[in-house]
Amino acid sequence: MYLGMHGGDVEEVARRYNIDKKNIIDFSANINPLGISEKCKEAMIDSLNNINVYPDITYFRLKKSISRFENINSNNIFLGNGAAECIFNVVRAINPKKALIPAPSFSEYKQAVDSVDGEIKYHVLKENNNFNFDEDFICDITEDVDLVFICNPNNPTGTLTSREFILKVIEKAKIVDAIIVIDESFLDFVFEEERYTLKNLINSFDRLVIIKSLTKFFALPGVRVGYGITSNTKIMKAIKKISIPWNINTVAVEGSIASLNDTEYIKKTREYMEKERENLYKEIKSHKGIKVFNPSVNYIFFKLESNIDLRGKLLEKNILIRSCENYYGLDNRYYRVAVKSNSDNKILVKLLEEVLNE
Amino acid sequence: MYLGMHGGDVEEVARRYNIDKKNIIDFSANINPLGISEKCKEAMIDSLNNINVYPDITYFRLKKSISRFENINSNNIFLGNGAAECIFNVVRAINPKKALIPAPSFSEYKQAVDSVDGEIKYHVLKENNNFNFDEDFICDITEDVDLVFICNPNNPTGTLTSREFILKVIEKAKIVDAIIVIDESFLDFVFEEERYTLKNLINSFDRLVIIKSLTKFFALPGVRVGYGITSNTKIMKAIKKISIPWNINTVAVEGSIASLNDTEYIKKTREYMEKERENLYKEIKSHKGIKVFNPSVNYIFFKLESNIDLRGKLLEKNILIRSCENYYGLDNRYYRVAVKSNSDNKILVKLLEEVLNE
Repeated sequence: MYLGMHGGDVEEVARRYNIDKKNIIDFSANINPLGISEKCKEAMIDSLNNINVYPDITYFRLKKSISRFENINSNNIFLGNGAAECIFNVVRAINPKKALIPAPSFSEYKQAVDSVDGEIKYHVLKENNNFNFDEDFICDITEDVDLVFICNPNNPTGTLTSREFILKVIEKAKIVDAIIVIDESFLDFVFEEERYTLKNLINSFDRLVIIKSLTKFFALPGVRVGYGITSNTKIMKAIKKISIPWNINTVAVEGSIASLNDTEYIKKTREYMEKERENLYKEIKSHKGIKVFNPSVNYIFFKLESNIDLRGKLLEKNILIRSCENYYGLDNRYYRVAVKSNSDNKILVKLLEEVLNE
Repeated sequence: MYLGMHGGDVEEVARRYNIDKKNIIDFSANINPLGISEKCKEAMIDSLNNINVYPDITYFRLKKSISRFENINSNNIFLGNGAAECIFNVVRAINPKKALIPAPSFSEYKQAVDSVDGEIKYHVLKENNNFNFDEDFICDITEDVDLVFICNPNNPTGTLTSREFILKVIEKAKIVDAIIVIDESFLDFVFEEERYTLKNLINSFDRLVIIKSLTKFFALPGVRVGYGITSNTKIMKAIKKISIPWNINTVAVEGSIASLNDTEYIKKTREYMEKERENLYKEIKSHKGIKVFNPSVNYIFFKLESNIDLRGKLLEKNILIRSCENYYGLDNRYYRVAVKSNSDNKILVKLLEEVLNE
């Protein structure tokens, strides 16, 4: 059975199972269900008039928009063709001998470390601690580790990690001379973002690299824009050296700038998500035979008591969810679903009920 | 004085010289002056309706279009975020100890080899041979060289290299166990393309990698799509390992597919370029104190007898041309101009005359 490496591979799934992709409701990718901002769409259409011109190779305006949005100096920002390229470029720049990766977590960290033949040391998060980090993780930052990943909130579990804990990680990293990459790609969905983000501490800790994606919050997986934030000039220089020129396309530049400036859309998204997530969480939780982990952002992670093929059964009903079977540290009882529109969520709840009662 | 690393940096130039970028006529980037195909534009606008969905991670349809356009099996194609990423990925995959690069030639080859700390051996092409390749180049493919670049036609000189010569290069590469990268990004502009392309020989020579860009011919520098062609499964596997997922964005995918299928536009471009290039060539040639090299595609390369600052003087008149001063092997007397619309070309000719007669 084709399981896919990632969520959101609707086209591939449709081709393999011979389903019209328009009929699939995709809960496997964690994308803002409000869709893109109208201002973003207008800006992207406009940008097509300049598609016969090279993008500004310095990406001056895009960096300025991110700088304003994050309240970070432009000089501390590097751009990537999606957060994926930022992750790969940090790894290429550091060229780690051994990286510590929590499990389960986003699969790109492993892929990036593999790409430079680095060794991976997994730290398996404990289910009985709801996949939260604990002191054991600090202990695993040993002398031989030169790179540490933390996804906050973690994908796929949704667990949030406090600043206090990450500061302890940084303290330990200082001792063993490791770089810490914090992936905050989903943090924009969190209302009390400032309780969790490390971005305002980058000037105090130069072994810190923060990764952000515009894909999820601004519903832009098709445009490919992400960025990194660091005060580490050595890493910045190394990333510049290995980066390709013009890595972000013009439509992506203009769409991103318009999205980052659309404060109305940002507010609306957070409010919508807060409410809709809680609804869906309660609904899924009400089922017997399901353990639902406390969600924090725009996706919900759960475990079935039985090991029925939930993904396959829902796909028969044109619902695509993310099986977490191929995450290191999980098995075929774990699943992740995105919080989508109210009507889509209702369909999911109904079909979930049908399948679980079969 | 800011010289820029590349052509086409209109935004940066406008910012530095405080000129409204809309007033600049850009002869520094070699882009099809007909602009993008109408079908491409429609497809790109349509694609924005799916921007909230991940691109197909296998790029099945895009590869199929390229396969048809090039008459090459899809399995022999790898994609890049612009030809730039293809060049970088080939270099990352091969990780050369020493690369042979002709000079002058496209600056990305050096940048890519530098990015993996490879050594560069330049082969300086001779002006008295009109910057054509000769047997000396074959002699320079020594035992210590593991990667060889050839840009055909060469950028910025416009010289075309015959298949016969490249076959000799391949023979020598076989002896020293080197990989040959042929950049055919401008070859679509050539009417007798089949006299020069190596693409139909990739199955006979597995040490061959061909690079193509959609940027120039289809006027799409803003979308960033390029591809490579090779039958070398080891290189293909290595490229896959180091590639980031979703490296081409959705707008780029749909714009490229529509462009590659627009045979009418392709024919029109070739006819237009053939005629307009010859006109501009004759006009520039008629000036005293200028040596113009025989052009083959959509740009014209020339040398001034004096070393006046032609770029600076034309920029005062809002015309941006490419100074070739920062190409290895050239100096401040060499320039490159793109063939643009008939009316733009007339302006260039007139202002060139004014400046040269000052």
